[in-house]
Amino acid sequence: MFHHVKELQFNARVSKPDPRFATLLLEQFGGENGELAAAMQYFTQAFAAKQPYPDKYDMLMDIATEEFSHLEIVGATIQMLLKGVNGELKDAADQSEIMAVMNGKAAKENVIHQALSNPQFGVLSAGGPRLTNSQGIPWCSSYTHSNGDLTVDLRSNIASESRAKLVYEYLMQFTDDPYVKETLSFLMTREVAHFEMFEAALASIKPNYPPGVLQADPRFTNQYFNLSQGESARGPWNEGEMPISPKSWDYIADPIGHVKETEGLQNQEDGIAKEMKLTEKLNKELSKTRSAEITSSEPNGVAQWSNYNTDKNE
Amino acid sequence: MFHHVKELQFNARVSKPDPRFATLLLEQFGGENGELAAAMQYFTQAFAAKQPYPDKYDMLMDIATEEFSHLEIVGATIQMLLKGVNGELKDAADQSEIMAVMNGKAAKENVIHQALSNPQFGVLSAGGPRLTNSQGIPWCSSYTHSNGDLTVDLRSNIASESRAKLVYEYLMQFTDDPYVKETLSFLMTREVAHFEMFEAALASIKPNYPPGVLQADPRFTNQYFNLSQGESARGPWNEGEMPISPKSWDYIADPIGHVKETEGLQNQEDGIAKEMKLTEKLNKELSKTRSAEITSSEPNGVAQWSNYNTDKNE
Amino acid sequence: MFHHVKELQFNARVSKPDPRFATLLLEQFGGENGELAAAMQYFTQAFAAKQPYPDKYDMLMDIATEEFSHLEIVGATIQMLLKGVNGELKDAADQSEIMAVMNGKAAKENVIHQALSNPQFGVLSAGGPRLTNSQGIPWCSSYTHSNGDLTVDLRSNIASESRAKLVYEYLMQFTDDPYVKETLSFLMTREVAHFEMFEAALASIKPNYPPGVLQADPRFTNQYFNLSQGESARGPWNEGEMPISPKSWDYIADPIGHVKETEGLQNQEDGIAKEMKLTEKLNKELSKTRSAEITSSEPNGVAQWSNYNTDKNE
Amino acid sequence: MFHHVKELQFNARVSKPDPRFATLLLEQFGGENGELAAAMQYFTQAFAAKQPYPDKYDMLMDIATEEFSHLEIVGATIQMLLKGVNGELKDAADQSEIMAVMNGKAAKENVIHQALSNPQFGVLSAGGPRLTNSQGIPWCSSYTHSNGDLTVDLRSNIASESRAKLVYEYLMQFTDDPYVKETLSFLMTREVAHFEMFEAALASIKPNYPPGVLQADPRFTNQYFNLSQGESARGPWNEGEMPISPKSWDYIADPIGHVKETEGLQNQEDGIAKEMKLTEKLNKELSKTRSAEITSSEPNGVAQWSNYNTDKNE
Amino acid sequence: MFHHVKELQFNARVSKPDPRFATLLLEQFGGENGELAAAMQYFTQAFAAKQPYPDKYDMLMDIATEEFSHLEIVGATIQMLLKGVNGELKDAADQSEIMAVMNGKAAKENVIHQALSNPQFGVLSAGGPRLTNSQGIPWCSSYTHSNGDLTVDLRSNIASESRAKLVYEYLMQFTDDPYVKETLSFLMTREVAHFEMFEAALASIKPNYPPGVLQADPRFTNQYFNLSQGESARGPWNEGEMPISPKSWDYIADPIGHVKETEGLQNQEDGIAKEMKLTEKLNKELSKTRSAEITSSEPNGVAQWSNYNTDKNE
Amino acid sequence: MFHHVKELQFNARVSKPDPRFATLLLEQFGGENGELAAAMQYFTQAFAAKQPYPDKYDMLMDIATEEFSHLEIVGATIQMLLKGVNGELKDAADQSEIMAVMNGKAAKENVIHQALSNPQFGVLSAGGPRLTNSQGIPWCSSYTHSNGDLTVDLRSNIASESRAKLVYEYLMQFTDDPYVKETLSFLMTREVAHFEMFEAALASIKPNYPPGVLQADPRFTNQYFNLSQGESARGPWNEGEMPISPKSWDYIADPIGHVKETEGLQNQEDGIAKEMKLTEKLNKELSKTRSAEITSSEPNGVAQWSNYNTDKNE
Repeated sequence: MFHHVKELQFNARVSKPDPRFATLLLEQFGGENGELAAAMQYFTQAFAAKQPYPDKYDMLMDIATEEFSHLEIVGATIQMLLKGVNGELKDAADQSEIMAVMNGKAAKENVIHQALSNPQFGVLSAGGPRLTNSQGIPWCSSYTHSNGDLTVDLRSNIASESRAKLVYEYLMQFTDDPYVKETLSFLMTREVAHFEMFEAALASIKPNYPPGVLQADPRFTNQYFNLSQGESARGPWNEGEMPISPKSWDYIADPIGHVKETEGLQNQEDGIAKEMKLTEKLNKELSKTRSAEITSSEPNGVAQWSNYNTDKNE
Repeated sequence: MFHHVKELQFNARVSKPDPRFATLLLEQFGGENGELAAAMQYFTQAFAAKQPYPDKYDMLMDIATEEFSHLEIVGATIQMLLKGVNGELKDAADQSEIMAVMNGKAAKENVIHQALSNPQFGVLSAGGPRLTNSQGIPWCSSYTHSNGDLTVDLRSNIASESRAKLVYEYLMQFTDDPYVKETLSFLMTREVAHFEMFEAALASIKPNYPPGVLQADPRFTNQYFNLSQGESARGPWNEGEMPISPKSWDYIADPIGHVKETEGLQNQEDGIAKEMKLTEKLNKELSKTRSAEITSSEPNGVAQWSNYNTDKNE
Repeated sequence: MFHHVKELQFNARVSKPDPRFATLLLEQFGGENGELAAAMQYFTQAFAAKQPYPDKYDMLMDIATEEFSHLEIVGATIQMLLKGVNGELKDAADQSEIMAVMNGKAAKENVIHQALSNPQFGVLSAGGPRLTNSQGIPWCSSYTHSNGDLTVDLRSNIASESRAKLVYEYLMQFTDDPYVKETLSFLMTREVAHFEMFEAALASIKPNYPPGVLQADPRFTNQYFNLSQGESARGPWNEGEMPISPKSWDYIADPIGHVKETEGLQNQEDGIAKEMKLTEKLNKELSKTRSAEITSSEPNGVAQWSNYNTDKNE
Repeated sequence: MFHHVKELQFNARVSKPDPRFATLLLEQFGGENGELAAAMQYFTQAFAAKQPYPDKYDMLMDIATEEFSHLEIVGATIQMLLKGVNGELKDAADQSEIMAVMNGKAAKENVIHQALSNPQFGVLSAGGPRLTNSQGIPWCSSYTHSNGDLTVDLRSNIASESRAKLVYEYLMQFTDDPYVKETLSFLMTREVAHFEMFEAALASIKPNYPPGVLQADPRFTNQYFNLSQGESARGPWNEGEMPISPKSWDYIADPIGHVKETEGLQNQEDGIAKEMKLTEKLNKELSKTRSAEITSSEPNGVAQWSNYNTDKNE
Repeated sequence: MFHHVKELQFNARVSKPDPRFATLLLEQFGGENGELAAAMQYFTQAFAAKQPYPDKYDMLMDIATEEFSHLEIVGATIQMLLKGVNGELKDAADQSEIMAVMNGKAAKENVIHQALSNPQFGVLSAGGPRLTNSQGIPWCSSYTHSNGDLTVDLRSNIASESRAKLVYEYLMQFTDDPYVKETLSFLMTREVAHFEMFEAALASIKPNYPPGVLQADPRFTNQYFNLSQGESARGPWNEGEMPISPKSWDYIADPIGHVKETEGLQNQEDGIAKEMKLTEKLNKELSKTRSAEITSSEPNGVAQWSNYNTDKNE
Repeated sequence: MFHHVKELQFNARVSKPDPRFATLLLEQFGGENGELAAAMQYFTQAFAAKQPYPDKYDMLMDIATEEFSHLEIVGATIQMLLKGVNGELKDAADQSEIMAVMNGKAAKENVIHQALSNPQFGVLSAGGPRLTNSQGIPWCSSYTHSNGDLTVDLRSNIASESRAKLVYEYLMQFTDDPYVKETLSFLMTREVAHFEMFEAALASIKPNYPPGVLQADPRFTNQYFNLSQGESARGPWNEGEMPISPKSWDYIADPIGHVKETEGLQNQEDGIAKEMKLTEKLNKELSKTRSAEITSSEPNGVAQWSNYNTDKNE
């Protein structure tokens, strides 16, 4: 159950209206890396986590709720940046000011003028935030990832926080309002804090690599296919030890020749039988473990989400 | 600022898994008339209302927050209806049960079997809710309406609640789990309650018709164009008194002839000059009033959303 | 069957090209509250209405056809506002004028210059209307609502007309072309006229509340949950009599406490048994009535949509 | 201006309900190659054609209006194929029949059972057509093409009619209702008729190749790059005379070598200067012609779409 | 299997940054008629063609691969047009230059200033191409057509190439950078070359009309319905011989009267029995032929895509 | 420049048709975590990396090209799983087999029958892959992330590979065809290999934390807001040392009280001045470094993407 207090988590303020920046800031309201995307991603991930992993559920709901609170801060800031637009549009019988602006006869720094560069502020929302990105694209749940596996979901979250942090960093370059910068700095920093929370949570799951349950197939794990010819580079991603797996990279300099020679990579499993067996064993063990974690936490009979006492009214 | 308590607003329970109904229920999680759509519609409308109409802001945020809480109830119910799916998928090394089902060798009522009729439960969410409708269409903010005018927004909300109520009514016919029906009955009823709240709020605004600020143009207000020929019907929508405007309907039986004769409706304003003047006057008055309501509520200088005391740290 | 006459329903004219306003006007051509959305909404609703409610079918098709005719007026106006763009682009071997504009060496008020602020006019439609909104978002049928129940569909329509009216009101502030204003005033007014038609049609259905067939569950009908704390407001939406239901609002000042105390709202149905019975009875009666209205109007055997005589050629 | 008569263009009939086929048939109602897509494509193309090419405008509006009429036929057929669904859903208080079906206790051929395989019929439209494709994807105006040039638009239309014809051909294999097949045969055939209309119209424009105004650059017109190695085939598309241009194909057997050797195709224009000049000349001539066709048809001063007499009321 | 060489197919160069044109050029990167749309259309069509029509498969893959290579050229050009944007944004601690531009205190021709007119370059991609059109709409696979029939697919491709050619033609008018124009001229011309390849391939299929397998129904093939009244035009699309079918057009001057008189076009098949028989015969023959072409090319038993030798490792 | 060899990178085979699994496998062809999404993500990221970071550019293009090659493998497998569908549909005049299946009179395991559960295979692609997910949602470029900063892009890629790996893991449970499983095992494993490549590349950038350029604001870095009440959990994500930053978590047990007390988090910066200064210093340094890396790699004058020699033809 959610509730709301009217005070914002951070004391958001705005020195003066700036519809141009309000347009850019929509990116964090209804954009692909914005606050709604973050909130809904963690919120939907939380459902599958609740019974088997109540500690991760608690964390996901804590952070999801904070992201909702940030969504409110961003919306409030956009609304304040658009001060004057709604009031002006309500003066529907007297369009003198708007047309003066439209016709270049009014001061250039006029608020209305800037608002017009974003049609949605003029004719759809009438000077308020809408759940679109900075170019008017409606928010879409495809922006969120929830895949029923914490070793994957937490990695999705780390990437999401990285992108959200970067977008705030870019946005901060387009305003010199000290109040707005203060708010953006707060919001940007919280993405970094969430990043570390998700890193810590991921590290607390053992094993967490590879993501999911199954091991990689040892026959195809360490090849690097040099598929882009010309000025090819070598680095830790294709030579020396692999960063996680206990193998060395196998650099396939001529992938087409190699593929043809191996008849479509069929003939390269020599001497790998033992490794295949080990993989199979690990797969079975982790499958049983992870499956049991979940299954054992699901009660038999009637399912109930909350801990309510239902004795008296049955 | 939002916060969250782990108890649901309603004690949602499920007798036994039913992935088939979980698929249908997605309509209220990520569908066009679902709980997220309602929550986000009222939440975005609230920003523009806060300063000029704090009472309506309070109502919009109360109901938006309840809709978020309903979204959680729907998600929790879907998760419980999918019990077993995630655990089964985690047993990644042993697919015997799943394939037995796939090949028709397992009991027909098997949970996994039903889950497979919705691919997203099998290969994307792994047995949890996703923000899509019952056919997998991602939720999209185009489902929400926020237009910066309460006489319009409240009517959008009344329609939204009507549709949401109807979808619950339809859904209730596809389950006979008494616990699930109880939850759906609660959720359906709350849509009706919200409907009445919005009706009452709309009635408290004077005038609230026509929606927005401007009067209708008296030259074109009362014609009914009979544009679909054959078995044409008459009723209060095209004969007798108009329901709101103090005029009678003017039934144009032959619209093409009429349009040609009036040279594109140009010549029908005879004797309407007085009415035109009145309209203009009303437009000016209401424009000033509504514009002033908003403008006067916006403080000069630095804008601040919350009532925080900023003296000590400036 | 549709047909078309080349004369517009209203004599749309344009004083001089204005690509900037053409961009805004797209909102009513391919936008979420535009003419196509209205036309397609009423058109799709009409199919289910035809047999059981031929009078409402007639009204829906009359208005849908008028909206198609308005779509044509809007498209024609956009085309006239873009005069010069297509011809200029066809002069493909001589780009001197366009580049002069691009490089700021031509007069600022140049038509081409303004057209370039909307890329779709320059490189996609080449100076004609496209079915997008003012920001280029393609029209999408999610904008329309058709739910197989007139008490809901008509309310969706009232809301749609409200929004469409408001968008015209906003648009009228961004042009001072008297011909264009005249056309917009006509179109805006027709939305108001349609609003009243739908109101009258809704009032002619008895009962029409709650929307759909089922009554609200009397246990959950009248609570108002005060879920947004701080400066909470009271008004007819949460105190005194409910506007439609014969009950008083029950204001839950502390929803979290209340929910916990009632174990998830389970224990509040005391003394409500009689009301529950009545609800059940009303549900059964209206279910039978509405179901019979529809079923009885569907002929047995071969279904035929039109009244054609098929004797001679069977 | 559109109008409507209640009789369909074709006497659509249905032997008995078949919700399963109704689902497939949605492809022609709200699918990418369906009737709405065709209608809207020709309708939007028509605006730019009206003044310079009134004969093509007439044809586009004739066919667009027929496609609207076909959309109505498809919708009517879907509605008849779903007979019983809406009535059953309205019996909201008595779900016995629906649940009997859901639980496998009712006859397999039951209409409701089949309807449930498409969730939108059960919980959104309640047994009527919606503007989606057969998988529930909402119709989107990206399906239509309107590019302000008849030599391109007519080719888009020929392709659209080809696809629409093919989809009807596929659909006809999934029903054995003779009435429905008759309707589909009519609709399929009309797509072929329209195909020929567009072919004839395209042939009446001289020159119509290349599409648009500019000639192809003679340096890059006739190379065929053999970019997919292994079992390469030769045919009239890469050897011998080009089908339209008066040149022979130049088969580049080793594109990578060729590109490197020519330093990115820079050095191959030898002896082509004369051809370049001719191209430039042709470009200038056709640019002037096409530009003039359009510009000269646009009247000076106030633009008016219809031929109304405006003398008396100015 | 794909591979890549770092050299572009064409030596793309840019004289100086021009973010404004970069925005327009996105139309060919991620727009509906752009290079990705073409590449993916031919690539997906190729799968069904591989076994029955290996020569067409080869052609489709040759051209698809060239379009991928063109996508790379367009992306490289956009990146070069945005030189300076990414570096400037990375100077995150010193926003002086950006704000000087934003506040109108820096030179107007500044690169950053122009980049800001496209929000995605400022806050999402940070100065690189994204897969959107010129208005920020994400690329969507609905732009591609692949329908499992070469007589249809090739016509879709001819239309696609026509539109792509036209968009390049339009784009060339908005830049005067000679290097960029050179690249655009190359790309535009290749669309024309592909157009001819598809024309030649279509002509090599006998018969290829009507598209697909089934003949048109002779009862409904040649009527032209005059559904748009007023200034109706006659031309080869509605009078005289049909361009392909060996019939004359039948001009229905009064479609509504005709439809009513024929009871929904039911009674017009007189004397057409012989033609119907012929149609049926042709349908059967071509069905068998086309079906056999495909079926006979599909090997029995295990299917293998490539010609690898699998003897040794089975 | 891309090229193509007809041999697949892996020798994909299929034992027998299985349209049901083909539907699920679409998730990796046109789904949000599929091969096209991966290929396009790395491909678009590569443009910005080319000049400043040619080694990372090489890696991104190597992996992007491998993903395109995997897309081809997935498409080929889907095509083989659908053997028989296209040929059957081409037998357009004889629908006996299809209707026998539709009417339950043919063997249940029939290929056509299974194909019909996915409408797109029956009426759109006619038995070939389309760029949609398993529920028919068109692929959309919103699935890809490219943000002009390698410390962010590489993290997006790690998350993308994690999700892609997991989806293959899920898919492997829904087939028991040993050839298909072999192919899926190869593809799944390559996602793991790419994961490690991106990890290694990220580790080679110093510093790479926080993502982007700017440091976190020290005032807001380490608070954990306990916003979900009830059964709150403690773990390394909210107690003890932070995993990366050299601080300890500050657990805000009562966030609402804390926020009110600090007047919206304004008053908590005591004693943090020194840390603020350090942050500012780090920000300036890294800004200069990263900006210079990019700027210095961009040549002055004409930009050219490839290393072609242009002397001779200038």
